[in-house]
Amino acid sequence: MVETQIPHGGNLEEARRLFPDAPGPWVDLSTGINPIAYPMPALPASSFERLPTPDAHADLEAAAAEAYGATDAAGVVAAPGTQILISLLPHLRPRSKVSVLGPTYAEHARAWRGAGHEVVDIVSPDDDHETDVLVVVNPNNPDGRVLQPRTLVDLAARLHQRGGWLVVDEAFADFDSGETIVPSLPTGAIVLRSFGKTYGLAGIRLGFAIAQPDIAGLVRAALGPWVVAGPTIEVGRKALRDRQWRVAAAEARANDADRLDRLLQQAVGTISLGTTLYRLIENPAAANLFTHLGRRGIWTRRFRENPNRLRFGLPGSAEAWARLETALAEFASEVERAAPSQREEGIA
Amino acid sequence: MVETQIPHGGNLEEARRLFPDAPGPWVDLSTGINPIAYPMPALPASSFERLPTPDAHADLEAAAAEAYGATDAAGVVAAPGTQILISLLPHLRPRSKVSVLGPTYAEHARAWRGAGHEVVDIVSPDDDHETDVLVVVNPNNPDGRVLQPRTLVDLAARLHQRGGWLVVDEAFADFDSGETIVPSLPTGAIVLRSFGKTYGLAGIRLGFAIAQPDIAGLVRAALGPWVVAGPTIEVGRKALRDRQWRVAAAEARANDADRLDRLLQQAVGTISLGTTLYRLIENPAAANLFTHLGRRGIWTRRFRENPNRLRFGLPGSAEAWARLETALAEFASEVERAAPSQREEGIA
Repeated sequence: MVETQIPHGGNLEEARRLFPDAPGPWVDLSTGINPIAYPMPALPASSFERLPTPDAHADLEAAAAEAYGATDAAGVVAAPGTQILISLLPHLRPRSKVSVLGPTYAEHARAWRGAGHEVVDIVSPDDDHETDVLVVVNPNNPDGRVLQPRTLVDLAARLHQRGGWLVVDEAFADFDSGETIVPSLPTGAIVLRSFGKTYGLAGIRLGFAIAQPDIAGLVRAALGPWVVAGPTIEVGRKALRDRQWRVAAAEARANDADRLDRLLQQAVGTISLGTTLYRLIENPAAANLFTHLGRRGIWTRRFRENPNRLRFGLPGSAEAWARLETALAEFASEVERAAPSQREEGIA
Repeated sequence: MVETQIPHGGNLEEARRLFPDAPGPWVDLSTGINPIAYPMPALPASSFERLPTPDAHADLEAAAAEAYGATDAAGVVAAPGTQILISLLPHLRPRSKVSVLGPTYAEHARAWRGAGHEVVDIVSPDDDHETDVLVVVNPNNPDGRVLQPRTLVDLAARLHQRGGWLVVDEAFADFDSGETIVPSLPTGAIVLRSFGKTYGLAGIRLGFAIAQPDIAGLVRAALGPWVVAGPTIEVGRKALRDRQWRVAAAEARANDADRLDRLLQQAVGTISLGTTLYRLIENPAAANLFTHLGRRGIWTRRFRENPNRLRFGLPGSAEAWARLETALAEFASEVERAAPSQREEGIA
């Protein structure tokens, strides 16, 4: 098996290599991680030193069940990040036909393909009725496309009849309304939820698989005990029960996303897509804008397979906003100076 | 698949349920974790907030390669604890015949069986020449039995010829001399090393698989990126490069193990087995001693399948030593009072 390297956001080492003369500190807008982190509680030394207890682990899963609206905590499985669930799931099925609704987060297809399954990229959920597994990122990364819960429940039923799975990666669902299928979880569906993005704590590694007990049991056994670190359990169960913080953060980040949209529209004249935690422009100016921002120490997320796309996370400080505003204004005026027609081309 | 619950050490919640009237705080001797933890360095907030970078992750693996004597860091794969590697490996092979050299740490057999393999418990490595996978814990948990590197290299060669694997769990090898096969790693061998036990930081979840690049690549792909938490990477790469601490800790814990052996021999008249980080007695008094100590707030590790065995971790403070000494002396005098002959029976 050959491991394909997939470029990801968040790699400032790559930013430094690509733009060695950029002024620091880097403004990292390359991820969809909330830039205003949940305040870290004080952590007891024992959480680092001792094995996490089964009770603490179970309580973390109970907190997640409440936060995500799962009716049965037994179907909620905590893991060290969503990514390992993405990598692991393909090893829990015999060789299957797998459809990935794309373009989307590339690790899904890589993982299924790497584990020996037959993977097809599809652009509509109705493109392949013969598939055993359908993977949907909802809302989608990077373009924010949303499938309605009703559609997903129907798809899950169809797949379940064939012994198949519907994998719904809800990594960016926390701040984006009621599109989750967790409260009405159909048999055969596996929902992935990501803690780190919403709470701005991607480094502590926490994610969840939510499924009916049979599939949840499979995932739980494949991870084994003590899979989530002690300090992560402590932070996770506190944060997931802090409804007040989550509501306030959702509102604040939605305002940030609106502000970012306005800046991007002024700069390149394009309406943005995406979710509360990232905005995507699709514009012929994207490649130039990536370089323009990179030289000014602002790191965004480009897509090798589609150079017209550029994704922006939310700035996390007044200074970061100011640097982005200045850089975008400079870009707009440079484009106008160089070739007045180009900008209008960009709008088309 | 039914998930079997295996009782483990370190679960003080169980201790409290079993001995609700025991005086606190509990002295936990139920694990083989170094009770004197590596001093936690200050952790930057960014390690909690940002995704761990590929460079930081690779540097952690390089530090582990140095510490464990691996000739090629590309064959060293960091994971959130050794346990997930134990749970994961069975999913990376087609259905195989698996032999586990026992009695040993029960999660190995559970994981292979749970993933659908045919598992046989053997008591000598020569008991099954037809196996595809042989699992050896070396030194063994709980009895400290050691297979020599030369034997293991021969076994790996035999297995490799059949396309098989030799899994060597060296969880307790750090403090116990030169029995590791990492420096002379044979093709087809997968060595597991545990960080948390040696460094007394079991809560941060860190372990390693060490193998030739082909198998290492399989494991790496199944775990996916960002699998180790940011704070864990920071602690791990510092601690693994701190040779001075490791040498001093090995000597201090070896002295502790000697002291514990003397106390146990005085109390029950039995020579202990094990490794530097735990000592095992095999004695008809074991079940009574477990209860005697539990009522005094000292939690040890019993074995349901062999009630004559009791395993002791090392006390980590002067107070813990004093409480253990007192409790063991009381036990010895109670046994003598109750039936003078019993003690001699225990010696036999």
